[in-house]
Amino acid sequence: MDSKLLSSALENVRATTPLVHCITNYVTVNDCANALLACGGSPIMADDIDDAPAITRICGGLVLNIGTLNARTIETMHAAGKVAGELGHPIVLDPVGAGASPLRTDTAAALIDELPITVVRGNMSEIKALTGAAAATRGVDANPDDAVTEDNLAEVAAIVRELAGKLGCIVAVTGAIDLVATAERAVAIRNGRAIMGKITGTGCMLDTIIAAYVVANPDHALEATVAAIAGWGLAGEVAEDRMGELDGNASFRTYLIDAAFNMAADQLANGARVEEL
Amino acid sequence: MDSKLLSSALENVRATTPLVHCITNYVTVNDCANALLACGGSPIMADDIDDAPAITRICGGLVLNIGTLNARTIETMHAAGKVAGELGHPIVLDPVGAGASPLRTDTAAALIDELPITVVRGNMSEIKALTGAAAATRGVDANPDDAVTEDNLAEVAAIVRELAGKLGCIVAVTGAIDLVATAERAVAIRNGRAIMGKITGTGCMLDTIIAAYVVANPDHALEATVAAIAGWGLAGEVAEDRMGELDGNASFRTYLIDAAFNMAADQLANGARVEEL
Amino acid sequence: MDSKLLSSALENVRATTPLVHCITNYVTVNDCANALLACGGSPIMADDIDDAPAITRICGGLVLNIGTLNARTIETMHAAGKVAGELGHPIVLDPVGAGASPLRTDTAAALIDELPITVVRGNMSEIKALTGAAAATRGVDANPDDAVTEDNLAEVAAIVRELAGKLGCIVAVTGAIDLVATAERAVAIRNGRAIMGKITGTGCMLDTIIAAYVVANPDHALEATVAAIAGWGLAGEVAEDRMGELDGNASFRTYLIDAAFNMAADQLANGARVEEL
Repeated sequence: MDSKLLSSALENVRATTPLVHCITNYVTVNDCANALLACGGSPIMADDIDDAPAITRICGGLVLNIGTLNARTIETMHAAGKVAGELGHPIVLDPVGAGASPLRTDTAAALIDELPITVVRGNMSEIKALTGAAAATRGVDANPDDAVTEDNLAEVAAIVRELAGKLGCIVAVTGAIDLVATAERAVAIRNGRAIMGKITGTGCMLDTIIAAYVVANPDHALEATVAAIAGWGLAGEVAEDRMGELDGNASFRTYLIDAAFNMAADQLANGARVEEL
Repeated sequence: MDSKLLSSALENVRATTPLVHCITNYVTVNDCANALLACGGSPIMADDIDDAPAITRICGGLVLNIGTLNARTIETMHAAGKVAGELGHPIVLDPVGAGASPLRTDTAAALIDELPITVVRGNMSEIKALTGAAAATRGVDANPDDAVTEDNLAEVAAIVRELAGKLGCIVAVTGAIDLVATAERAVAIRNGRAIMGKITGTGCMLDTIIAAYVVANPDHALEATVAAIAGWGLAGEVAEDRMGELDGNASFRTYLIDAAFNMAADQLANGARVEEL
Repeated sequence: MDSKLLSSALENVRATTPLVHCITNYVTVNDCANALLACGGSPIMADDIDDAPAITRICGGLVLNIGTLNARTIETMHAAGKVAGELGHPIVLDPVGAGASPLRTDTAAALIDELPITVVRGNMSEIKALTGAAAATRGVDANPDDAVTEDNLAEVAAIVRELAGKLGCIVAVTGAIDLVATAERAVAIRNGRAIMGKITGTGCMLDTIIAAYVVANPDHALEATVAAIAGWGLAGEVAEDRMGELDGNASFRTYLIDAAFNMAADQLANGARVEEL
């Protein structure tokens, strides 16, 4: 992938300040807002059925994250998603915990069925749950058995590409190696660090960043998704390298968002480890 | 304005630890609690209709913030506000996103109509939406066209003073230049930094601080509001000056609350840039 | 208490990564997740009645925290608690604000009545409210009159032990001196610093850590609870010692979670100030 597409994707976000409507969980919502601001977007949260559709309308994109779903917000997700679909706004879906409970699995499936999702992002266990495969999600983390490794990369990429074709959207699987695929293409990203799993919400934050990138780069949704993921992984690398002896996961969280805030276009272009498979 | 009123306002907060009931959004609620603690107050959050009135009763003041409003919490805001009104407790209203959706505009208007609000604080777009002017709110941020500048300051101050008279409360408009007005008086505050807009919740946190200041200074509500706003802007200045090369908006957030925590009375008196118009 | 039991309690958490289902308040939930990750556990939040029981089932323990309770989540707490009870999973209850409103007092009492709670943790005012004593809770903080001091320690320990016997569970009272008791035993812990009360959520975070410790040490629930509390207090000591001149409560919050993340087994064994009464 041309690294210029990655740096221009970042520049387009910073130049246009995409407004992203997030219907997301209350665990990581504050970090989502600050991460989105860090990357150059602007967040707005609204989850009431009488409020959300109007908010969707004034935004450029929508994030649906089922991390703390409930009957009320599920209904709102459908309503907001319908508006976003009518307006042609990108929708990013995070099926948090799909496979961990029937409600999560079913809600993710229903949102995919009824809405024109642009990007689905999850860990491998969540993504597998969407295929109807026997679920082995370990809470909100991927099952170790589902790890994407150098050994199974080609095989997993084929599965993800097939799923992308079936769902008609971009599928992004994040983990030690990240995979982004459409029916036709698959890209592996080798940025990021293991410590990103030691704070809550790295995935949720990434959802909002992906949304901003896709909104700002409507003609290059795949490249925009890759840029967002590679940039976030790169921010994780910068953040871990900054850690001192007394720092732990809380300092890492701060450094991660800081690194996204300070990420330069050429830093992304040079640091992204992206391979078209 | 006598700078002694500002420093004594701060001292009164620290001396009395005002207990503030916050019905606020779930995006910034944690920062609201920590910012309120930093300035010397004590937070309690309760948004259930069967719980909130009793909590209002044991507190000294109430914050109503509609950032993630829903049918359930709107009802609670009215019920808690009624109790606060009966007890003569100060009420601070933040009409987050008024103008961005009909529900937000209407809810803010209804709360103002039915409750004895003490202070309304918002950005200029939100405040304009309360006047019934054509709304141009850009999500939760002010529309750039609504910026308060040195050029339009006198004109905007007249509008805000008129609104304060109409609403019968203090109106606080925060932005590059902050304005605090009653029907009779208008004060401009020139503290703060642009980076405060790069984290979520600087306005929400300020709401809770204003509440603590007004509770602790019942005979000087205008001066207390000015002290809270000037002090918060000053904390933003201290925080930005503390930033190193690798720091971004996440470190700024930490430094901002830290600066509020460490704010001394004479620091506020000397650093506040307050002008009675 | 043998300090080896404390260090092995910590090691067992790190070795087994206990998955803890938290039905907790939206004020401190993000810090709860990161604190639980810091100590070596793994969080999952789910509060919908159609989702929570399935999530409880895949976890090892359950935290019920009524900090921002509402009719919907109270029902879910009972349903999830019932499942946890059937499966023999430890349940930690935090009666936040019991004594501050009838709903909180009654909800805490009902949860204790109907569920096989393993540990109740609160400040002395909240714990007293559970005994039916005239409530004097000051919001979410303990009433100063309820402080546990060297002078009243023996007397308070007797009360807490009696309550533990009555409730049939471990009762943990945290404050300047912490007390952990069953009907037969009482332990005083003298770790921690006053600044822990200057951030929101030190108690809530501790709830989740206690849960992880009890899940990982099923045969030593009392010692596990003591280890969690002593370790958290010790983390507070490390965090405050790390503070520089410009640091305030926000930096302290980061340092506190960092210190839990970096806590070594021998550091806990050597630093815990635990006295069997």
